[in-house]
Amino acid sequence: MASYTPSDYVHRFPVRVGYIDTDRAAVVHHSVYLRWLEHGRIELFRDRGLEYKALELDDSLGLPVVECRMKYKRPARFDDEIVVETRIGRVSRATIRFDSEVKRDDELLVTAEITLACVRLPEGRLQSLPEPVKRVVCS
Amino acid sequence: MASYTPSDYVHRFPVRVGYIDTDRAAVVHHSVYLRWLEHGRIELFRDRGLEYKALELDDSLGLPVVECRMKYKRPARFDDEIVVETRIGRVSRATIRFDSEVKRDDELLVTAEITLACVRLPEGRLQSLPEPVKRVVCS
Amino acid sequence: MASYTPSDYVHRFPVRVGYIDTDRAAVVHHSVYLRWLEHGRIELFRDRGLEYKALELDDSLGLPVVECRMKYKRPARFDDEIVVETRIGRVSRATIRFDSEVKRDDELLVTAEITLACVRLPEGRLQSLPEPVKRVVCS
Amino acid sequence: MASYTPSDYVHRFPVRVGYIDTDRAAVVHHSVYLRWLEHGRIELFRDRGLEYKALELDDSLGLPVVECRMKYKRPARFDDEIVVETRIGRVSRATIRFDSEVKRDDELLVTAEITLACVRLPEGRLQSLPEPVKRVVCS
Repeated sequence: MASYTPSDYVHRFPVRVGYIDTDRAAVVHHSVYLRWLEHGRIELFRDRGLEYKALELDDSLGLPVVECRMKYKRPARFDDEIVVETRIGRVSRATIRFDSEVKRDDELLVTAEITLACVRLPEGRLQSLPEPVKRVVCS
Repeated sequence: MASYTPSDYVHRFPVRVGYIDTDRAAVVHHSVYLRWLEHGRIELFRDRGLEYKALELDDSLGLPVVECRMKYKRPARFDDEIVVETRIGRVSRATIRFDSEVKRDDELLVTAEITLACVRLPEGRLQSLPEPVKRVVCS
Repeated sequence: MASYTPSDYVHRFPVRVGYIDTDRAAVVHHSVYLRWLEHGRIELFRDRGLEYKALELDDSLGLPVVECRMKYKRPARFDDEIVVETRIGRVSRATIRFDSEVKRDDELLVTAEITLACVRLPEGRLQSLPEPVKRVVCS
Repeated sequence: MASYTPSDYVHRFPVRVGYIDTDRAAVVHHSVYLRWLEHGRIELFRDRGLEYKALELDDSLGLPVVECRMKYKRPARFDDEIVVETRIGRVSRATIRFDSEVKRDDELLVTAEITLACVRLPEGRLQSLPEPVKRVVCS
């Protein structure tokens, strides 16, 4: 399987933790980070000139999540200002792994590796990454 | 605007409150009830012989929520066993209002009036309730 | 029941609609607006010098939602840039009603009236609005 | 680090996919599975005689998620009847890994390995698994 050199671009997505994001332990529920990680990936694309929405609407391509790994090191709490830092971790012919760190100032809260696969919509057949995506995720 | 006599059928949908449903006040977050109310409406339909999914896929009709009113009287908590009781509150040519009560045993926690409008998909134009829906919601 | 003159302050909270916020009808699910409305209320407080978190932690006061009314006029879609405009609609001795409009440019998508009651934590007994809150919500 | 022989008990938690669980690709959003996996773990405990809530309230112990790995193989869709099968994958002095498979009939949709750590509440210090928990997760 062909593998490309990932871009070393780092995207920072700021988040203010909402009340709704917390659970009865008064910390952010572990599922909520997937929301913020998704926002981070979409904004990384936008920042690099690629609209994820256009990929779906104009090119009938989708990038569903096929794998995720997360480690929860410290809890985030209501009203915290945190940052989701996202890098391209690995690029193969049809997949991209995004490596993210969620931080509160210098404190590392969560690490995540989220792998997306490129598929043709609506049927979902695996598909090589198109050139506009490769330009964004490869150096 | 034509108005029909609503069915007096009552549907009971049981729910076990999850950890994820709670917030830092250790009670169910007010947004979560909309999830359970939606399940209640879909299961009321199913119980009466109507598959909501078929309405969308076979008939290209949708029933989006156009109005909601909720009163929160008492909090639900993690692991509570609660019940969503749903009745048909009002039926007009193109809308249905579902009246629900969320209870823990005999204790009333939340009341809700959720109004759906019948629309043609995908464009969303208002549409008379089709016969199979009227049979379910009218007496 | 005493009623106060509400402040005419208007707070604008910008939101970028996420992929997670949409449902299979390709529009924002009706439950998601409660998340954005809550952010809007908390940021209105902050903008006026009041930290909602401090109210809970320092003063043992909470402001749970006791009533909500929403009208959904037009759908929001993935990647839309929308704004939650929040005003103080009504203030009584122990409650505040926030009136919000969710807009995409000049297009009105959703209107909401969300009423919060002031309670003493943890037991939840109704409580007069404290002075710092009254200063924010009254003119 | 001491490691114990995990119980070979298998718990099956049935789920009906809701409308709210889907996204604009008309499939279940990848974040939603964490909700169902959590329900599965809590019901596995209950089925074996352990109330997770009592662990928190009576023993001041919590079991936060410290790591998760998920592979998404096939999408679930609105109204699907699926099952979350949960086993104990690994038990160490202070952690439990739950291995789950989400299936629609015999079709494997998602695999998950979710690791919880036992901590003392509220401060969150790591703590050996108490005897009642070990009885449930070890054979």
